[in-house]
Amino acid sequence: MKQNTKFNAAILIIGNEILSGRTQDTNTNTIALWLNSIGVKVSEVRVIPDIERIIVETVNHLRKINDYVFTTGGIGPTHDDITAQSISKAFKLEYEIHKEAFKILEAYYKVGEFNEGRQKMVWMPRDANLILNPTSGAPGFNIENVFCLPGVPSILKSMLGGLRNNIVGGDPILSHTISLRTVESEIAKSLANVQDDNKDVEIGSYPFFQAGKLGVSIVIRSEEQIKIDKCSFEILEFVNQKKIEIVAR
Amino acid sequence: MKQNTKFNAAILIIGNEILSGRTQDTNTNTIALWLNSIGVKVSEVRVIPDIERIIVETVNHLRKINDYVFTTGGIGPTHDDITAQSISKAFKLEYEIHKEAFKILEAYYKVGEFNEGRQKMVWMPRDANLILNPTSGAPGFNIENVFCLPGVPSILKSMLGGLRNNIVGGDPILSHTISLRTVESEIAKSLANVQDDNKDVEIGSYPFFQAGKLGVSIVIRSEEQIKIDKCSFEILEFVNQKKIEIVAR
Repeated sequence: MKQNTKFNAAILIIGNEILSGRTQDTNTNTIALWLNSIGVKVSEVRVIPDIERIIVETVNHLRKINDYVFTTGGIGPTHDDITAQSISKAFKLEYEIHKEAFKILEAYYKVGEFNEGRQKMVWMPRDANLILNPTSGAPGFNIENVFCLPGVPSILKSMLGGLRNNIVGGDPILSHTISLRTVESEIAKSLANVQDDNKDVEIGSYPFFQAGKLGVSIVIRSEEQIKIDKCSFEILEFVNQKKIEIVAR
Repeated sequence: MKQNTKFNAAILIIGNEILSGRTQDTNTNTIALWLNSIGVKVSEVRVIPDIERIIVETVNHLRKINDYVFTTGGIGPTHDDITAQSISKAFKLEYEIHKEAFKILEAYYKVGEFNEGRQKMVWMPRDANLILNPTSGAPGFNIENVFCLPGVPSILKSMLGGLRNNIVGGDPILSHTISLRTVESEIAKSLANVQDDNKDVEIGSYPFFQAGKLGVSIVIRSEEQIKIDKCSFEILEFVNQKKIEIVAR
């Protein structure tokens, strides 16, 4: 863990179905918004296939350079679910039955329904901390700074809330959006000047099409409201000078 | 370029707006589906911030281990659009005005509208090949095996068709989906046996919720229809034995 007040995380999406285009990933967006709200900045996202060697190497790389790593996918009962065994290898831990997870699933399923396939979901790296699953029983798990979540978006969402106390974050990352009826080239130079004046604030410019009209949203991001307000003021100054219509602010 | 008939690609999404959760990326899915249709397999996806050093390092890494790299984002007129200058650095090429791109945009805009902001969009690595943009004029570009596309999804989509002739692919990657009214744990073992019998075919299992009912889609992927048919046959065999309802095939 770094010794400052900025926290960062990598998101690792594990799954051939995203790489093939069969499935549109939405978990990145869910996790990113949640992390922002608790003051953790997403440094990068990777999508990788269900291949053990690649999962091991990627997790071992990402966990060393980030405060947190969140993985999604690969913790179900089928042959292509290899996240738990791969994480065990990454940490050089035994891959074994997790007693607490076993008890949870034994109680969750009706008598006779806790079959061999489902029992695969309680195999985890030794001494993993469980991430409880209020939707469908089978828990995720956490080893050191790596948190392993399922790939099904609704289940993943239901599990994030319970993770809040495990994550130390900084101040929430605040943002303010100013939407203008203009095109990017019209404001590019003035906006670059504001960015130069405020180097520690993140200013993004994003064109949009709405109700058949072009516009640009300027997004200002910082942990400090006062810095956002200063940028906002400077942007509105040139917007007024250029007589650009403000759509929303 | 590798000397075999399998082609792979990495997708590199450049943009703070994806990492912050402000924007849901859909370009990965668009590019992945298109690449599959022309026989190129996506090996990995990365999402990185608008930081020059990171763009340079990531592009230089990915282009060495993939047949193709597709980047999206960061080629517009504003200060946060730094893809072209970063790619120039990655390839140690001059970052300069591209004469052909200049002519295209000069003709595209009305007299007097090709202002300084817009002129930024014709700065590219020396001798870049242009990727024409039928939607909004400003071209993308290609250097060696790296193809740089815009971040706006509708514009990106309109540019992919024109790229077809620049990409050498293999046989299209075929897939067949069998959707069952069951749960994964019910079929996990039988499906693992089919995968063991057919190691060069990619078999994925994906739970779904539809009209309030649970189901599982099995996706079989290969360049060879005959291999898909064989797996399909073996899967339907155990499905019939287990008397599982087939929802779609």
